[in-house]
Formats: sequence, C-alpha cells, structure tokens
Amino acid sequence: MSRTVIAWAATSPHELEPMTIERREPDENDVSIDIKFAGICHSDLHTVKGEWAKTEYPLVPGHEISGIVTSIGRNVRKFKIGDRVGVGCMVNSCRTCHNCTEGEEQYCLKGPVWTYNTRDPKEGKITQGGYSQHIVVDQSYVLRIPDGIALDVAAPLLCAGITVYSPLKHWGIGPGKKIGVIGLGGLGHMAVKIGKALGAEVTVFSQTLSKKDLGLKMGADHYYATGDPSVLRGLKRSLDLIINTVSATIPVTLYLSVLRRDGTLVEVGMPPEPLSIVPFALASQRVGVYGSNIGGIRETQEMLDFCGDKNVFPVIETIPASYINEAYERMMKSQVQFRFVIDISSMESRPRL
Amino acid sequence: MSRTVIAWAATSPHELEPMTIERREPDENDVSIDIKFAGICHSDLHTVKGEWAKTEYPLVPGHEISGIVTSIGRNVRKFKIGDRVGVGCMVNSCRTCHNCTEGEEQYCLKGPVWTYNTRDPKEGKITQGGYSQHIVVDQSYVLRIPDGIALDVAAPLLCAGITVYSPLKHWGIGPGKKIGVIGLGGLGHMAVKIGKALGAEVTVFSQTLSKKDLGLKMGADHYYATGDPSVLRGLKRSLDLIINTVSATIPVTLYLSVLRRDGTLVEVGMPPEPLSIVPFALASQRVGVYGSNIGGIRETQEMLDFCGDKNVFPVIETIPASYINEAYERMMKSQVQFRFVIDISSMESRPRL
Repeated sequence: MSRTVIAWAATSPHELEPMTIERREPDENDVSIDIKFAGICHSDLHTVKGEWAKTEYPLVPGHEISGIVTSIGRNVRKFKIGDRVGVGCMVNSCRTCHNCTEGEEQYCLKGPVWTYNTRDPKEGKITQGGYSQHIVVDQSYVLRIPDGIALDVAAPLLCAGITVYSPLKHWGIGPGKKIGVIGLGGLGHMAVKIGKALGAEVTVFSQTLSKKDLGLKMGADHYYATGDPSVLRGLKRSLDLIINTVSATIPVTLYLSVLRRDGTLVEVGMPPEPLSIVPFALASQRVGVYGSNIGGIRETQEMLDFCGDKNVFPVIETIPASYINEAYERMMKSQVQFRFVIDISSMESRPRL
Repeated sequence: MSRTVIAWAATSPHELEPMTIERREPDENDVSIDIKFAGICHSDLHTVKGEWAKTEYPLVPGHEISGIVTSIGRNVRKFKIGDRVGVGCMVNSCRTCHNCTEGEEQYCLKGPVWTYNTRDPKEGKITQGGYSQHIVVDQSYVLRIPDGIALDVAAPLLCAGITVYSPLKHWGIGPGKKIGVIGLGGLGHMAVKIGKALGAEVTVFSQTLSKKDLGLKMGADHYYATGDPSVLRGLKRSLDLIINTVSATIPVTLYLSVLRRDGTLVEVGMPPEPLSIVPFALASQRVGVYGSNIGGIRETQEMLDFCGDKNVFPVIETIPASYINEAYERMMKSQVQFRFVIDISSMESRPRL
C-alpha cells in the first residue's frame, strides 16, 4: 500500500513549503525507511532554483538521508527492521551497463535515477527526496550506517562525504601525498578531514583567512587566502591533487602551476560557467583537469565505514524544517558552518495548510 | 675549436635567410654531428613569428634533426664517429630535479635547454637549431637512429613522433583500446600510425573528408568530418583517449562526450587561446583534459626503436633550404602532406650575402 507522508517541497524556485506526498507501495526488494535527518546540499539549492536540468515542481529535495528501516521486502537480505541506514544521490540505475556492473553506478550510461527530480521507471513518476518523513528505496541503493556514526552527522556523508572521498581514493591519495582543497564549505571541510584521515598533507585555499582557525583545527596543514598572488607562486609544483569544491568560477589555470608533474585538479563544485584553461599550463608538466561525480554504492559504503573507523564527521548545524527557507538564504550568502541538517522529527504530523 | 657553419635563420618574424653561425668547441661529453635532414615543425613557425615566448633574432629553428657523428669527446661512450643519430627538442636540462632523474627531462623543473631560442648555461649563449650544417650536443641528449629508419624520415620522429608516442604510452594505449585523433597533420598522421602500431582502433576527426583516403591508408579505422554534429553524438562514450593535435581553438567540450568513463583528452597542439571546458562535461563520466609535451630522452629512444621495428615513418616532403620561406607560407595554409624536411645538403657551402 502506498503511504502519505509529510514533506517539504519547492513549489517554485522561490520557496519551499510543507505538503503531503505519496510514497510507493514497497515491493519485494524495497526497504522502507523512516527518515531522521536530511542534509541540505548545494545541489538542492541549484535544483530548486532551476539552475541545472529542468526542475519539476513541486520538488522535494534532499539526497543526504539517514534513518531507520521500518519494513523490508521479502527478498531483502542486506537489511532488517531497525537498521540504521542512509540513502545518497541515487535510488536506482540500469544495473547492466559497464559502469553499473563495475560498481560505478553514478556514471550509469542510461543515467542513474537520482534521488529527486528524475523519472523513475520503477516508480513511474518523478522521484522525491529526503526532506520528508519516509522513503522507499530498493535495497541495492541503501547504505548501512556504522554504529560509530550518529544519524545527524551521517547524513552529509551521503553526498558531501562521498563526493570528495571518491576522487581522493581514485587518484591514490594517502601518506606522502600532498593535496590542495579550494574552498572550505560543505564539500571542502570534508575534503580536509578525509584527506587528513587518509594520511595526506592538506593545504586549503580559501577566499579569506576568516575560517583559518577552523580549517587548521579540522586538520589542515596549511591555509592560504587566494587573494594573494604570491601564495600560488610560493607553492609552485608542490601538490599531487587539487580538489576544487567551489561552485563559482575561479581562475583554474593559476592553480595548475601548483601541481607537480602528472598532477590533477578535480572539479567537484560544478560551476555553471565553462572553465578557461590555457593549454600550455596543462602541457608544461603534463597536468590535467578532471571532473568527478559522487561515488558508486560500494565506494559509498566503504567511505561510511572509513569515516566510522576514523571518526571523521561533518560539522553540522541542525535545523527544524521550518527553517529551510532561511537556511537557503544563508547558503546563498555562504553563511553556513558547514552543513545544514534538517531534523525530520520537526516536521509537523499535519502540514500547515 | 669553435666552428663556423652555414644555417638558415629568421632575422625577423617575416623571413628566414642563410647566414653563418658559430658552433661551440666540443667538450669531453659532446657529440659533433653533421646534420643531414631537419624537419619543419609548427613550433618553428610559432617561434619565428614570436607567437610563444620571446624570440631572439637571428633565430635558427629546427628540433627534428638527423645526421652523422663526426667527432666525439673523450668521455663519450654511447656513440662513435659515423653513427646515425638524432637530436630532438632538448639539448640539456638540470639533470638533478625529480623529473630529470625520473627520465622526464622535458618537464625539468628548471626548464630544459630547448634546441633553439634558449639560453644554454653550458654554451653561454642562445641555442640555435637544426636548420644548419652542423651541431654540437651533449651525448646525454643525442638519440641513436635505428638502421631501419632512413635519415630523412627519422627527423620528424624527434618531435612529431615523440609528441604523440609519449601520451599514447602514458595513457596505456594498446590492443583493445580505442583512440581518437583530432587533426590529420604532422602530429595527427603520426598519432594514427603509432596508435595503429600499438594495436589500438583509431578514429580520425578532421575538418573535411579531403584527406580521408590518405588517413585510411595510414591505418585509421574510421574517419569523420568534424563539421557534422551527428558524428560526435553517434560516437558517444566510445573512446578511451583523444589526442588533439590541432593548434587552433576547437570546441573541446563537445569531444568529451565521446570519451568513456575515465577517458582523457590530451592537448598536444597548443592553441594560444584558452580552452573553454564545461565542468559538467568533465564530471558526468569522470573524464579529463590533460596536456603533454614531447617525451623524455629514454622514451624518445624507445619510440625510435619502436618505429624502426614496426616500420612506422612519417610522410614527408623533402625540400631544399631555399624553399623554407615558401614552406612556411604553405604550412600557414595547411598545405603540407605531412611534414616538410629540409635536405641540409642543399645548403650552399657559402651563404648568399
């Protein structure tokens, strides 16, 4: 039987409001989850505002979901009722293309079914995300949250965490490696923490030094303001990998001079404007610019287990649902340290009408 | 004793003319080489025109050099008089930085001593290149030309050959891999031939189909005109590596859609304008854009031996020195199939005054 639950949805690019939505009747492979916390990701904001792909309103954002299993389908072996689980950016994919079969479902050649704003062949309608009391997800796209991670701080790991963990692992970051992190926001602060936990030396590049003490406390070894051009000159050819978490346009070519031979600058912030890259700056030390998009399900589980083992958690500000619109305003002004997480228990049992 | 030899030099961005230059007195590590052939590379043209770094006139271009050893210093063990040898883009480097010690001298952190237009600490003056009768080079930067390669076709391997061989090897191209080559010019035709010899499936993207028959004859498996937008759509996510040999600005982002997950587009053509790259096009399949600059000395020797084994030679048009200015004109109009090579024996024993 399908189920009516409270959710907060964008009805236009300008506002989110409470409403009820229908969650599908769980099938034999589904896990039903009472959502406890939902992180607010910049992607939510971009999608609400219609800045990326076409947005279908009303839209329930949220792909940093943590909660408790309330029922399982008869084929579900991976989870049982009461388990602490998470759902990230994907709830399905084709499972047959070479990317899916290699565990890189985020690069599904038919396009993954994103947790919101995507037509889901299984559900027959547009997916709705985690700013809601409940969700039904196929077991193959549900993650186990290790005991050592509280559900509130678990939520942001499902997107912010894996978005930086995946490129750090893909490019072989570990002891002896030196990484740069551009931007100390939701993604950036996780890149610092995970980079350190992996054993790397971490340098942060931020617009100002206003968050320097926080950054160093998180484990950054060096912290520079990007406004000073002498900074990059002083670091010439010293880093193995740079993770650019900034979603605004920055002078990427300048940062290429900081990479050692064969180094990579990875874009995870997804600015809407094209990057402008001088070819000589690539060729002079065989460096490159890649993009990376979250991580596969297997790797997301690995990241959760790693963060549980290493006590790597995001710094969050927990808010009630009624604060979502204000939170969005503050995110647009970069006034968040470092991730908003919605306490779903704050959702009224009946929506305001 | 230093030696006066005939050379053709640019005295301005507009013309090359014959003159005499001094070659240094060889020291105990030097190899003295009678130059037999010198290829004409697009870099020569860019440098003559002052389009790259500052050009010191008079400038003798030429870094695709083949010839015969005429004398050796007392420490020279690698070569003997009469050996068939080549000199490429570098004649020295610091030999102590990690790139030099790892055999990647082209990425020397102090900057390699390029074969022309670079101040050489050993020589104390600006280097002068291969459009001349004779050159003196430290043995560590001299290559052995295998018996199976004629000296005229050997010359372009020293730059055009290694420029494409190095990225093909670095990115693991071999049987089962599919590569794209943008542009069928001096670099592009070598990328097709070397790509095939390495066992890859090769797709050429050219402005028109005018050279299609030539491209297929060289071994290309597929040949497309880039003007047709349906071409790239049809090839979506099919290639492992794309080598962009075009030195003009092209819409790089469009080609990213042709790369499989983790694929790379490598810039070797060095357009002067920045590339414009859409970050989403990078992240959607974790693809990237790198640059690559020739290859190290060890790898250049490997490339020569490989081309000798596999009978991989450039297609050349041999010209007398008196034709250099006309050759430059034709290169600017893309009227060359596929590399001009100067027959140095055509240089008069006395320059015109």
